[in-house]
Amino acid sequence: RAPYVVRKVVRFAHCDPAGIIYYPQYFMLAHDCKEDWFREAVEYPFRQMITAERRGFPIVKLEAEFMRPSRLGDELDFEITVRAIGGTSLKLDYRCVCAGEERMRLKTVLVMTDLDAGTAVPIPDWLRERLSKFEAPPQEAN
Amino acid sequence: RAPYVVRKVVRFAHCDPAGIIYYPQYFMLAHDCKEDWFREAVEYPFRQMITAERRGFPIVKLEAEFMRPSRLGDELDFEITVRAIGGTSLKLDYRCVCAGEERMRLKTVLVMTDLDAGTAVPIPDWLRERLSKFEAPPQEAN
Amino acid sequence: RAPYVVRKVVRFAHCDPAGIIYYPQYFMLAHDCKEDWFREAVEYPFRQMITAERRGFPIVKLEAEFMRPSRLGDELDFEITVRAIGGTSLKLDYRCVCAGEERMRLKTVLVMTDLDAGTAVPIPDWLRERLSKFEAPPQEAN
Amino acid sequence: RAPYVVRKVVRFAHCDPAGIIYYPQYFMLAHDCKEDWFREAVEYPFRQMITAERRGFPIVKLEAEFMRPSRLGDELDFEITVRAIGGTSLKLDYRCVCAGEERMRLKTVLVMTDLDAGTAVPIPDWLRERLSKFEAPPQEAN
Repeated sequence: RAPYVVRKVVRFAHCDPAGIIYYPQYFMLAHDCKEDWFREAVEYPFRQMITAERRGFPIVKLEAEFMRPSRLGDELDFEITVRAIGGTSLKLDYRCVCAGEERMRLKTVLVMTDLDAGTAVPIPDWLRERLSKFEAPPQEAN
Repeated sequence: RAPYVVRKVVRFAHCDPAGIIYYPQYFMLAHDCKEDWFREAVEYPFRQMITAERRGFPIVKLEAEFMRPSRLGDELDFEITVRAIGGTSLKLDYRCVCAGEERMRLKTVLVMTDLDAGTAVPIPDWLRERLSKFEAPPQEAN
Repeated sequence: RAPYVVRKVVRFAHCDPAGIIYYPQYFMLAHDCKEDWFREAVEYPFRQMITAERRGFPIVKLEAEFMRPSRLGDELDFEITVRAIGGTSLKLDYRCVCAGEERMRLKTVLVMTDLDAGTAVPIPDWLRERLSKFEAPPQEAN
Repeated sequence: RAPYVVRKVVRFAHCDPAGIIYYPQYFMLAHDCKEDWFREAVEYPFRQMITAERRGFPIVKLEAEFMRPSRLGDELDFEITVRAIGGTSLKLDYRCVCAGEERMRLKTVLVMTDLDAGTAVPIPDWLRERLSKFEAPPQEAN
C-alpha cells in the first residue's frame, strides 16, 4: 500500500521572482497531501479530527533536502510513507518526484496532541492499524 | 556581531484552526528575517541581488525542531547566525525565541546561484567578508 | 459552456484561528481555478503564457461579496463566467457555492499585459474566440 | 488622526513569476496593517478580541482598484481610514502608496461577530469611540 501518492501542480502563487517554487510552499503542498491522505485513505478527515474531536498532529522535527528546482506548471507526485508509529508519535516521510526526477525529500516527526490541553495523547489502536498499512517494507526503511 | 536578531509578530494569517502557528509560516518568517538581514546588515538587498543581478541563494538542505507552539500575538525573536561559508554554499542557522522560551531551531544550507543559468556561483570576496561578521564564535559552532 | 466549474477543498492552511477561511484565501483559490480553466478549457496554460511568452492578465479592479463563512473540509465549487471581452481587458466573474449555498461572489477586471514592457496588449483573436465560449448568455449578464 | 499609516515592505514571498506582487498579498498586507492598527492605535489587540473574547470582524464586502504594480523591495504605506461605523458594521478604507505613487485602493465592510455563535453583535460604545477617532473628515468622506 505504501507509498500513497498525491499529484499537485506547481501554481503561479507558489513561484517566486526567481521563477521557481518558493521553498516553504513545498511544505504547504506536503501538508495538503497529508490532508488528502487522511481524508481519502486513512479515512480520518481533518474536519473530524481537528474540528470535532480537537485532536491534531503538530510537527516536532523535520528534515528536508531539495535536489532540483520546480517551476510553474510542473506536476509533482508526493509519495507518502509511514516510517514508524510510536506511542504518541508518527514518523512520516515524503518524496517529491516530477516526471521521474526527484525534487525533494522530507522526513517529519509528528505527535498526536489534544489541541485544547496541548498535551500528547496515545495514538488509538484503530488509527494505528490504518496508518500501519502505509508503512514502508522493512528493507526500505531508514 | 552574531547573532543578528529580528523580531516578528505572530499574525492572524499565520495561525491555523488549532489556534497555533501553521508550521510552514515559521519558514516564511525566517525567510523574511533573512531578507531583513541582507538588506539592513549585510547591505546586499534582495532587490539588487535577485532583480538586478539575477543571483539568489536557493535552499538545498534544512533541519528544524519545534519545541513549543506559538500563538496569535506572540513576539518572536529570530536569531540568525552564519555557521559556515563554503566556496558556493552558506550555512545559516536560526533560533526562534519568545520571551526567553525557545520555540524553534532551524539549520539551513544555501547555495549561491546564477538564477538564469541555474548553476552554482562562487560567493564573491566582498560578500564573504560581510557574511563572516555574523559567524558564531568557535566555541558555539556545531 | 458557461460557467466553467472547478471544485476546491477548504484546507487546514486556508483557515484562521476563528475556524473559518481567511478571506484572502478565496482570491488565491479563485486564482488557482482561473489557472485550471486556462490550462484545461481555454488551453492556454500559464506556463506557456507567462514563462514562454511573457504575457499575463494582472488585475485592475475587483469586487467581492462574502455571504456565508466556509470551514475546514468544505467542498467549494467555483463557477467562472466571462462577463465581457474588450480590446485588452477581460471581465471575469466567479461564484463560489458549497452544497447549493452561495458563499462568495467575485467580479474582476483583468488587462492583458506584456510582462516585460508592463504595457497593455490586445487580446489576440484566437484567444478571444476561446474565451468567448465561456460568456454568460445575454439575459444573465450584468 | 486619520489616516493611520503603516509601512510594509514587498517581500520575496509576495512576488510572483511575473516579478510583481501577487495581488491577494495586498489583502494579506492590508489585514496585517489592520492588526497593527487594532493593537497599537485602537488598543484592542486581536489576541484579546479573538482568542480571549471570541469576537471578530469578518469581511462581508470589498472593492479594490489596482493602479500600478508593486515590486520586490518597494516600501508601501497603507493609509487606514474609518469611512463609517454602523450598529454592527465597520466600513474601513485603505489607500496604498509607494513614494507618492498610488498603487491600490481598497474599500471594505466588516461586521462585528460572535465567533462561536456566528452572529452579528453590536459594536460596544468604548470601541466605537476609539474607532471614530480615525474617521475621515466629512469633506473627504465618500
